[in-house]
Amino acid sequence: MLHPLTEEKVFKDPVHNYVHVQDQLIWSLINTSEFQRLRRIRQLGTTYLTFHGAEHSRFSHSLGVYEITRRIISQFERSLYTDWPKEERLVTLCAALLHDLGHGPFSHSIEEAFDMDHEEWTCRIILGDTEVHRILLEEGADFPDKVASVIRKDYDKAIVVNLVSSPLDADRMDYLLRDAYFTGVNYGTIDIDRILRMLRPFQGRVVVKDSGMHAVEDYLMSRYQMYWQVYFHPVTRSSEIILRQIFRRVKELHEYGFELKFLPEPLPSLFRLEMTTEEYLQLDEALIQTAFMQWRKEDDELLADLCTRFINRLLYQYVEIEMLDMENIDEIRYSFRDVGLDPNYDLEIDFPTDLPYDVFRPEDESKETQILLLDKQDQLLEISEVSDIVRSISGIHRGKYHLYYPANKIAPVIDRLPRHIAVLFQRTELKEDFNDVV
Amino acid sequence: MLHPLTEEKVFKDPVHNYVHVQDQLIWSLINTSEFQRLRRIRQLGTTYLTFHGAEHSRFSHSLGVYEITRRIISQFERSLYTDWPKEERLVTLCAALLHDLGHGPFSHSIEEAFDMDHEEWTCRIILGDTEVHRILLEEGADFPDKVASVIRKDYDKAIVVNLVSSPLDADRMDYLLRDAYFTGVNYGTIDIDRILRMLRPFQGRVVVKDSGMHAVEDYLMSRYQMYWQVYFHPVTRSSEIILRQIFRRVKELHEYGFELKFLPEPLPSLFRLEMTTEEYLQLDEALIQTAFMQWRKEDDELLADLCTRFINRLLYQYVEIEMLDMENIDEIRYSFRDVGLDPNYDLEIDFPTDLPYDVFRPEDESKETQILLLDKQDQLLEISEVSDIVRSISGIHRGKYHLYYPANKIAPVIDRLPRHIAVLFQRTELKEDFNDVV
Amino acid sequence: MLHPLTEEKVFKDPVHNYVHVQDQLIWSLINTSEFQRLRRIRQLGTTYLTFHGAEHSRFSHSLGVYEITRRIISQFERSLYTDWPKEERLVTLCAALLHDLGHGPFSHSIEEAFDMDHEEWTCRIILGDTEVHRILLEEGADFPDKVASVIRKDYDKAIVVNLVSSPLDADRMDYLLRDAYFTGVNYGTIDIDRILRMLRPFQGRVVVKDSGMHAVEDYLMSRYQMYWQVYFHPVTRSSEIILRQIFRRVKELHEYGFELKFLPEPLPSLFRLEMTTEEYLQLDEALIQTAFMQWRKEDDELLADLCTRFINRLLYQYVEIEMLDMENIDEIRYSFRDVGLDPNYDLEIDFPTDLPYDVFRPEDESKETQILLLDKQDQLLEISEVSDIVRSISGIHRGKYHLYYPANKIAPVIDRLPRHIAVLFQRTELKEDFNDVV
Amino acid sequence: MLHPLTEEKVFKDPVHNYVHVQDQLIWSLINTSEFQRLRRIRQLGTTYLTFHGAEHSRFSHSLGVYEITRRIISQFERSLYTDWPKEERLVTLCAALLHDLGHGPFSHSIEEAFDMDHEEWTCRIILGDTEVHRILLEEGADFPDKVASVIRKDYDKAIVVNLVSSPLDADRMDYLLRDAYFTGVNYGTIDIDRILRMLRPFQGRVVVKDSGMHAVEDYLMSRYQMYWQVYFHPVTRSSEIILRQIFRRVKELHEYGFELKFLPEPLPSLFRLEMTTEEYLQLDEALIQTAFMQWRKEDDELLADLCTRFINRLLYQYVEIEMLDMENIDEIRYSFRDVGLDPNYDLEIDFPTDLPYDVFRPEDESKETQILLLDKQDQLLEISEVSDIVRSISGIHRGKYHLYYPANKIAPVIDRLPRHIAVLFQRTELKEDFNDVV
Repeated sequence: MLHPLTEEKVFKDPVHNYVHVQDQLIWSLINTSEFQRLRRIRQLGTTYLTFHGAEHSRFSHSLGVYEITRRIISQFERSLYTDWPKEERLVTLCAALLHDLGHGPFSHSIEEAFDMDHEEWTCRIILGDTEVHRILLEEGADFPDKVASVIRKDYDKAIVVNLVSSPLDADRMDYLLRDAYFTGVNYGTIDIDRILRMLRPFQGRVVVKDSGMHAVEDYLMSRYQMYWQVYFHPVTRSSEIILRQIFRRVKELHEYGFELKFLPEPLPSLFRLEMTTEEYLQLDEALIQTAFMQWRKEDDELLADLCTRFINRLLYQYVEIEMLDMENIDEIRYSFRDVGLDPNYDLEIDFPTDLPYDVFRPEDESKETQILLLDKQDQLLEISEVSDIVRSISGIHRGKYHLYYPANKIAPVIDRLPRHIAVLFQRTELKEDFNDVV
Repeated sequence: MLHPLTEEKVFKDPVHNYVHVQDQLIWSLINTSEFQRLRRIRQLGTTYLTFHGAEHSRFSHSLGVYEITRRIISQFERSLYTDWPKEERLVTLCAALLHDLGHGPFSHSIEEAFDMDHEEWTCRIILGDTEVHRILLEEGADFPDKVASVIRKDYDKAIVVNLVSSPLDADRMDYLLRDAYFTGVNYGTIDIDRILRMLRPFQGRVVVKDSGMHAVEDYLMSRYQMYWQVYFHPVTRSSEIILRQIFRRVKELHEYGFELKFLPEPLPSLFRLEMTTEEYLQLDEALIQTAFMQWRKEDDELLADLCTRFINRLLYQYVEIEMLDMENIDEIRYSFRDVGLDPNYDLEIDFPTDLPYDVFRPEDESKETQILLLDKQDQLLEISEVSDIVRSISGIHRGKYHLYYPANKIAPVIDRLPRHIAVLFQRTELKEDFNDVV
Repeated sequence: MLHPLTEEKVFKDPVHNYVHVQDQLIWSLINTSEFQRLRRIRQLGTTYLTFHGAEHSRFSHSLGVYEITRRIISQFERSLYTDWPKEERLVTLCAALLHDLGHGPFSHSIEEAFDMDHEEWTCRIILGDTEVHRILLEEGADFPDKVASVIRKDYDKAIVVNLVSSPLDADRMDYLLRDAYFTGVNYGTIDIDRILRMLRPFQGRVVVKDSGMHAVEDYLMSRYQMYWQVYFHPVTRSSEIILRQIFRRVKELHEYGFELKFLPEPLPSLFRLEMTTEEYLQLDEALIQTAFMQWRKEDDELLADLCTRFINRLLYQYVEIEMLDMENIDEIRYSFRDVGLDPNYDLEIDFPTDLPYDVFRPEDESKETQILLLDKQDQLLEISEVSDIVRSISGIHRGKYHLYYPANKIAPVIDRLPRHIAVLFQRTELKEDFNDVV
Repeated sequence: MLHPLTEEKVFKDPVHNYVHVQDQLIWSLINTSEFQRLRRIRQLGTTYLTFHGAEHSRFSHSLGVYEITRRIISQFERSLYTDWPKEERLVTLCAALLHDLGHGPFSHSIEEAFDMDHEEWTCRIILGDTEVHRILLEEGADFPDKVASVIRKDYDKAIVVNLVSSPLDADRMDYLLRDAYFTGVNYGTIDIDRILRMLRPFQGRVVVKDSGMHAVEDYLMSRYQMYWQVYFHPVTRSSEIILRQIFRRVKELHEYGFELKFLPEPLPSLFRLEMTTEEYLQLDEALIQTAFMQWRKEDDELLADLCTRFINRLLYQYVEIEMLDMENIDEIRYSFRDVGLDPNYDLEIDFPTDLPYDVFRPEDESKETQILLLDKQDQLLEISEVSDIVRSISGIHRGKYHLYYPANKIAPVIDRLPRHIAVLFQRTELKEDFNDVV
């Protein structure tokens, strides 16, 4: 078993000031090649093309999640709360640190294209023949399984799962603060010290002392604002659409038997959908970007164009459409085809959505998505029962559809499109402004 | 000639809050592929291996330099200072925006290895067959030359050169603020509003109103602190040494005729030292990192080991040595060779140095390195004449040499080294702490 | 007429960094004894007894309101918006600077007790025989009237009134930011740069470009949070209740003919409700606090006790009651009297309330309380029509009543109170914590 | 003996975010009338007349000093440092909290005028018949003496004295941060987390781990900058001079037997220099300001004028003189008298001075003024031996004398002054700018 460090080590972190490492186990995990790989995966995918500051990596986010978890546990221990099972400290810290270990480059897009799941990959890395696995083993033969089990949310101590994944977990708190810091958008600034002070372990869950209700309201509003200002930003969506089209296109080309000139390991295995863990760990954003750079010179014009767009940030334009019936869309598709456009690539529909906080519904068995307040009489109250604010934002769905398309391809044929469709693409949001939108 | 934008555009920037773009010319330049390439070059090279937040790019720094310059000029215009030549506004803004355009990936190391110069490349890009060049041309046939001339510091309006390159220029002000923000080190926090308020155009130079002396002192102290805390951080130097060794090794291998399995364009031209501008523009940090990833599997053991070290952050250890005579070093080299180590790769000497502000010396013709204060009687005073602080820090050289080496290679042979040399590597600074050093 | 200053002057301000003064008129107004008096009136009354940082004065707030107004106008001028009447610049700036000039010490409580109105006093000072009046006169014979008219909201240029008083005016923006800064509560942090960028003069009103909707939502949420966290904080209410009781008691004593030992000018006129402007200008918080210090030694026990409480911060306790029918209250009063307590002083009911944003109601003629968004087709939309968030928080009233009382007086007699009433005061919120409440 | 609190209480603090109170003893001390009195004493005296944000009280500073001390001790305990005597925790916290208890209104000026000493008064309050004394007694019969002894610096455990008073103590760290925050001057921003991490108890002293040297350099530079930007600001000095002249004048009038119309308790005892502790505790800034307001109407013209100046902020102008020989000053005095000016009130010489860090001198027995670094071999090094920066700023004395005078009194007689003296007052620094000086 690994011992505590004789002297605590720190990382300078712009969000939490210092990240404190007090256990040799944590220190060793950070120094594995698998964890270092997270330096080469951006936390916010293509968001840096909208907010140029958002270049931060999953490495720094993972340290941040670990640090918040460490502070929560340290406060639980200092306050001698009896509902906190002390012996779960290390397994919780490891799960917090490693929860994003399986993320691939530009995760959301690549997962969609190649049918992967980062949580599954996290567990494969933890349980496979890796440095991380070997270090975890030193803590006990079943320790890697325990950590994986927390990440899969089937660990038998519910409170540990709750700390690592819940609507008010360390993951969400860190990403709100961190993404706000690096984008420069100040809506994400939450009073984390106050929230942490208000958390209580209680009957197998982490709950919030009721006097912290306003702090939780503020946290949920921050989340709501960050979703609309940053995560669903139409310019970011535009770059993600191009990314997905690139992945889709190379997959098609691969299926057609087209041989790409540039295809270093482990891309062939990726395309064949049969990666080993070792191969998976070689995937990073540098590789993907380098491939895009090289593919700009491939013979397939579509792929070359898409890669050029991504690299040089020549994004798709978009229009917002209020109501959307599918027939209409089909009509647009047909008319696109008629004038020689490719409806599979020259038109994408996007419908971003988020519920800042899903209320409890009686039919739901699980309480995992709830935030519970603890009152002076030790009664639990679901927050939307007592907070007008939370109740009012809980049900808000935003019904805006966006159509994305390459403006330069449509312009030459626009006169040949039916008038009522052409009009749509003429009143386009020709915002060239990078990020002053929404 | 390009016109002002009808509506100002902004970039959200975490350091300056907003970067304001008011001219179509600036907007077009930002959207060129050459300028977008700066997103793929980190501002601080390998510093992210020490301070994990320092992932920011030269793209954001360039926007910041432009923004500070814009604010200075806008204040000069608002205050109706007659010593400011209004017609130079656009050429100054363009030079500020583009001054780092020629930076390559991990510039300092790659320039040293392949004898390149980023300033020269900046001018080649501005003057060559590029998008940037074509946009600048729209402003006038000699406009690209004018911009290049400001960057080469031989433009005939000295004040323009002075604004863009001087000890108190927009470049330095932005990087201090930005590097402090992204590393999280708060020493770089300068009162930029106050400094900007104190700047005056005066007889072909930008000078500082004397009541701003303390603000300038504070700025120079911040620079001093940033150098020692961040720029010269021994852990960062360690990663740079490995980087330079990789470049040195592949160059050697290339000269020996060794054929690397992975060598995509434009690396062959780089190794032959004959890159075209078009090729140069394909160099970015994603490519370099991808090459390192692939070279981990090359047959040359040394190269494979160095690349593995860089990718997995397995850095060299170091010892600090007070006094260093060359005989001693040679003795160490010989004894390294005797025990089978390679003194060309297993030992590196490093001597970081910086003068926060070089005082004027009578023999210097140029006044470019001076900061001048303007008193109430319109007399100019060199700042070190009046500031005790500046005078006292001007001459400070720090004489610390560091020896860097791969600890795991030395350990097995340490008993075979002469005792007085072995001792040196035993009292090594075995700090594994990422950044809590110096 | 007063001229622009040859060189702009600044005040260092922790909230806006610098407050810029560019006109001799503004400079002269700041230096009057009437404006300097605002240094001796706290911005947040007794809030410093809950949040110890909240010692800031109306002087700094007034400078802040002026500065925000100056920035808005300067942006209107720079953007050449034709709906902004340029000639109204100075009158707007003066009204912004002077709008709080008539505030007395602990305004809300003193106004209630002595039936005064600070807006009326502001106008009396502007129009009376004062330094401020004489300086305004230099700008034109009708200039003082114009400034007063803006403050009274009957100035004929509606947009000027709108800039100075509206749901999104400089006054509210400054106090949110300033009160958040000085209390240390971070909920008030709004993106003021973004809001300012989105403001447009349009048809006699200041409206918001529709892409700024989220920034306005965030501003309204911040206001909501500040109301509940700071302005309606029960500990602050408790100190205000004691303050009002002191004023009520001295007024009663005065009416009874009781002669206070300490009663310097201008307190006698205050009690007789017949103050001249000159006398009013001698009222400040130092005087009131000094009177309280001295009155601790008066023969009237009630007054002495109340003053001791205020000076030594021995506040009333409170209980929260969900539903309140008046009969119940009367019953409590009677039972208080029965056991020898004084229901007029030993029991106070408080019902704090705020609507963060009142929605437009068809029957309202005035649009002054609306925030209007301007879309791309120059159509105006009332914000609650488009924002779910605003609509959902618009109608929220919080129905919590608080009973305040001196715990030390109730304790000895609690057994003699009817059981169901005694119980109420036993489950009291015995929070001694200064500010970690709500 | 008082017990720990069952639940920790907090104060919201803008500088430290939260001040944590964990002991009933500390809580009770904060709630005494003597400690609450510190709310009515400003931390920075008249500085608010230069930096309008600087209205913060000694109450908030005292809480801050307590909080920093608590964090240091808590880290000593967590790290199990054996050189820290655990049993001294409470006495140290009490001394930290109470160290400023004896400060009077506008301390420095009033102490000079009436020959008082705040440290002596602190001890009198701790040892006298006060609430504070009675609470301390509950901890043990000798506990008040122990606390007083720490404040008097003769406590037998040197490390306790060292924590509370040394060049790197909690007092200095809090005031740098707090004064920077409230003035808005950002030079005081020090990395307190890093400094605290570097402190070590060692052989009866608090020393700094040598890797914290740069953090200490930065702290000393911040102090230096705050002295010159804030504490010695000539506008603040000007208001202090007027304050001292008021005190001097009323004392003279009292000695002459002149009867002031407004002279409430405890001012008569103050003038007779025979205050009891009870009387002393009635002194606060509200009383002094109220007295000044009333004295504007006294018959003594000089006193009335000085009070009007202070209240309305009509300060003295100043000139800076490089070299000052006493003969010259006498000549100015004589010529002032000749033209009917009063050299005792119409002319004041000021020579501000500070040494940011006094170096050790061999002849000094005491090491109390040193900052010691602890190296890896447990050797102590005085910081100026190793830091070039500290060495270079240690000896800097600034030799600027200022002459302060009432410009409006000199103007009418300036032609009658000898030419070489008149010239002096003509080249006066007619800066009306509030704080943009030095």
